[in-house]
Amino acid sequence: MDSTRLLRRREKSLGVGAELFYSQPIQLVRGQGAHVFDETGRRYVDFYNNVPAVGHGNAYVADAISLQQRTLNVNSRYLHEGVVAYAERLAALHCPNIESFIFSCSGTEANDVAIQMARMATGKRGVLCSNAAYHGNSDLVGRFTNVGRTQPESEEVRSFPFPDLYRPITVGLGEEELADAYLETIRKAIARFETSGVGLAGMLVCSIFANEGMPNLPGHFMARAAAMVRDAGGLVIADEVQAGFGRTGHWWGYEATGFQPDIVTLGKPMGNGVPVSATGASRGLIERFRSKTDHFNTFASSPLQAAAGMAVLDVIERDELLDNVRRIGRFLKDGLDQLVVGNQHLGDVRGRGLFLVVEVVTDRESRTPDPGRAAAMPDRLKELGVLTAPAGAYKTLVKVRPPLVLTTDDAASFLKAFEVARNDVCG
Amino acid sequence: MDSTRLLRRREKSLGVGAELFYSQPIQLVRGQGAHVFDETGRRYVDFYNNVPAVGHGNAYVADAISLQQRTLNVNSRYLHEGVVAYAERLAALHCPNIESFIFSCSGTEANDVAIQMARMATGKRGVLCSNAAYHGNSDLVGRFTNVGRTQPESEEVRSFPFPDLYRPITVGLGEEELADAYLETIRKAIARFETSGVGLAGMLVCSIFANEGMPNLPGHFMARAAAMVRDAGGLVIADEVQAGFGRTGHWWGYEATGFQPDIVTLGKPMGNGVPVSATGASRGLIERFRSKTDHFNTFASSPLQAAAGMAVLDVIERDELLDNVRRIGRFLKDGLDQLVVGNQHLGDVRGRGLFLVVEVVTDRESRTPDPGRAAAMPDRLKELGVLTAPAGAYKTLVKVRPPLVLTTDDAASFLKAFEVARNDVCG
Repeated sequence: MDSTRLLRRREKSLGVGAELFYSQPIQLVRGQGAHVFDETGRRYVDFYNNVPAVGHGNAYVADAISLQQRTLNVNSRYLHEGVVAYAERLAALHCPNIESFIFSCSGTEANDVAIQMARMATGKRGVLCSNAAYHGNSDLVGRFTNVGRTQPESEEVRSFPFPDLYRPITVGLGEEELADAYLETIRKAIARFETSGVGLAGMLVCSIFANEGMPNLPGHFMARAAAMVRDAGGLVIADEVQAGFGRTGHWWGYEATGFQPDIVTLGKPMGNGVPVSATGASRGLIERFRSKTDHFNTFASSPLQAAAGMAVLDVIERDELLDNVRRIGRFLKDGLDQLVVGNQHLGDVRGRGLFLVVEVVTDRESRTPDPGRAAAMPDRLKELGVLTAPAGAYKTLVKVRPPLVLTTDDAASFLKAFEVARNDVCG
Repeated sequence: MDSTRLLRRREKSLGVGAELFYSQPIQLVRGQGAHVFDETGRRYVDFYNNVPAVGHGNAYVADAISLQQRTLNVNSRYLHEGVVAYAERLAALHCPNIESFIFSCSGTEANDVAIQMARMATGKRGVLCSNAAYHGNSDLVGRFTNVGRTQPESEEVRSFPFPDLYRPITVGLGEEELADAYLETIRKAIARFETSGVGLAGMLVCSIFANEGMPNLPGHFMARAAAMVRDAGGLVIADEVQAGFGRTGHWWGYEATGFQPDIVTLGKPMGNGVPVSATGASRGLIERFRSKTDHFNTFASSPLQAAAGMAVLDVIERDELLDNVRRIGRFLKDGLDQLVVGNQHLGDVRGRGLFLVVEVVTDRESRTPDPGRAAAMPDRLKELGVLTAPAGAYKTLVKVRPPLVLTTDDAASFLKAFEVARNDVCG
C-alpha cells in the first residue's frame, strides 16, 4: 500500500518514535537471499541485516519451522529430543567451558540471564562494560548502554573506554603500550568495585565490539582483559548476539578476537528470524543459576526454537557459509580499501568477515567524526538499491553487514554503488 | 527415544534444575488440537497448556507463519503493512484507552516495558503487586514474584494480600466489608510509597489473579482498586499474559473482572507458540516511552510475529472460540462442582471460562492447603491420560486450563478421569 498512508497508520498504532531507517523510510514486502523488494517491486540488495543470516525467505528454515509448528510446539516442562539435540549441537560448536544452555527469546533476555548468573556465581554485583556498548533494553540490560557517555556510571556498572587503534586514548604509543593503557582502565574500574565493596561479578562485552564500531584491537587485548577479570574473581561474558554464527568467518567472535569466555550469549541470526536466544556456560554455572532462580521462559527451549536453530546450523554447514563469509568478506574489504584511497572523508575500513564498517570523517588527518555525511551515505546507497545504515560510537560509520549468503555478484554491485555514493556524498 | 536416556542428556545440556512436570516426566513428540502424544504413541488430553490456545499443530497458524517466513521476516525499521494491521486489530479489540503497542518477544519483556513506562510517565518509582504474583523472570520483573512471601518487599516494590473469598484476610465479613479490608491494604501500601518519597508509579496485576489461584473477588474489587491507584496518581497495568485472548470467555481478563487498565501486557497464546508479546497503552504513554528510550527489539514487531498473531485472531473469530470457551467451561465447571460435593479434600472449584482450579485441602472445614495431594492429583491424572499441573499461591490447586479448542467429548473424558483420580487420591 501507499507508504505515506502506511506511515501515518504506523505512527498511530506503534506510536511516533518507533524507529525507521532512512530519511525516506522504505516499505518491504518480500525478500529472497540477500535481496528485498518494496511495494513497487523495486529490488534492494540487503547489506544490513544479520538476522536473516542464511537468507531472506530461506525455504529450508521456513519448512523446518512449519513442520515443527504443525507437529508439536510446547513449553519445556516436557522432555523433547529436538531441544536437547540442539543444545548439544551448540555446545559442540563452542569452546570446552561452554557446556549447557538456558534458552530465551531475545538477546536482551540472554544478557539479563548472563548478568544475573555472574552475580549469583560470584556473590558480587559489579559488572564492567565498554563505554559505547549496547546489550539490550530490559531495565537491567539497558543500564549497560553507553555507560560513561550518554548514561552515567553507577555503583554496580562501570565502564572502560573501548579499545581502538583508530582513535586511541593515548596517541603516539606502540600497540603493546596502547594495550597496556587500555588494560589499565579496566584495572582501575575493577579497583573501584573492590574499594566500594560492590565487588566484581564480571565483564560483559561484545566479542568484536560491534556497536562500538568494530575497532581494530591492540595485540592480545581480549585475552589479557579476560585474564585480568578472572584474576580479580570475575566472570567473562561474551555477547555473541551480533558476532556469533559465522558473521566474522569464525563460528564465534571470541575466536576472531582470541579469548575464551565463561558465559556466552547468543541471539540475532540464531533462528533466521524466529525469536530465539541463549545463555551458555559451564554446567556448574548453569545449574547454580537454575537452583537459585527456578528460571522458566514459556516460549523458550521450545521445539519450534530448536527446529529453527537446527535448520540455521544445517544451512551454515551444508552451504559452507563460513568459507563464503571469509571469501566474500575479503573481496568486499579489498574493494572498499581501494575505494577510500585518497578520499578525505572516508578515513578507515575495518571489520571481520561480512561485518565491515567505513569511517566517515571531516578529514583524514583530524579523524573528526562526520555524522552528517555518515547518515547521507546510507540514504544515497538506498537510492542506488543497496541497504546499509549509519552506526558506531560516533554515528560515523557506514555499517556493511549483509546476510551470510551474499554472492560475489551482489558484492560487486555494492562496490559499484558505493563508488557512486562516495563521489556524490564524499566527493 | 528412551526417556531415561533423554532425561540424562537433558540434564547435561540444559542443566539439572530445568523444570519438568510430573514425578515421572513425559516425553512429547506430536500434538493435534487438545491432544498430545508421547514417544510410544500414547495420547494425552492436554488440560494445561494455554500457549497452543487454538490447538496443538494448528495448520492455519503453521501455514501463516510458513508463508510469512518464506516471504519476508525482517526487523521493524522498515515499513510493513502486516505489523501495522496487527497492531490496529489488537487496538480495536481493546477498551478505548489502549491505542498503540510496543511488541516484544515474551511476557517478561512486555512487563519490563510496562513497568519502565509507568515509571517514566509518572516520574515515580513505586509499583504495587499482589503478594502471590508472578509476572516474569528478568532482573526487574522477577522482583514482583511472591513479594512479601518468598521475596521481601523493597523500597520500590510493595505488595498487598491478593483478594480471596476462600481464605479471606478477615473472616466473618460480608463481601462489601471484605472488599474494604483488602482495599485498605492497597491504600496503606500506597501511603508507604508516598511517605518514603518513592512515590507511586502504578499497580501491576494479573487481571484474574491467575498465579494467585483464580480467587473469587469481593464485589467491584478491581474497579475500586484501579480507581484508588489512579486517584493516587498511579497507572494500572493489567497483565493479560495468561488472561487474554479469550481464556475467560471474554477477550480480556479485565472484562471478566470489571475494570479498565491504562497499560496492558499480552503474551502466551498470542502467537500459538511463536514468541510474541506486547505492551499496549494510550498513544501518549507509548510515545512518551519511545521518546525517552529509543526502545528497539530486534525480533519484535516483525512480519512473522504479526502473521502468527493475525492467524490466531482469525481462528478465534472464525471458530467462535469465545463461545466454545464459555460453553465448555460451564460444562467442566458444573461437572467439577458435582465431583467435589461431599469430598473432604476437594474444597472449592473456581475460575472463569477454560481456566478452572480445584482446591485440594486437608479438610473442608479448616481449608488447610494439602500440597501433597495437590501434586498427586496431576500425577494420577497423567496416568489416566489427562495433563494438568499443581498451582496457586499455596501449591494446592489442580490447574485445569486446556487449549480453547477443547471439545465436549474431551471435557467429558476429563471429568471421568478426574472422578477416578479423586477416588484414588482424595477418597
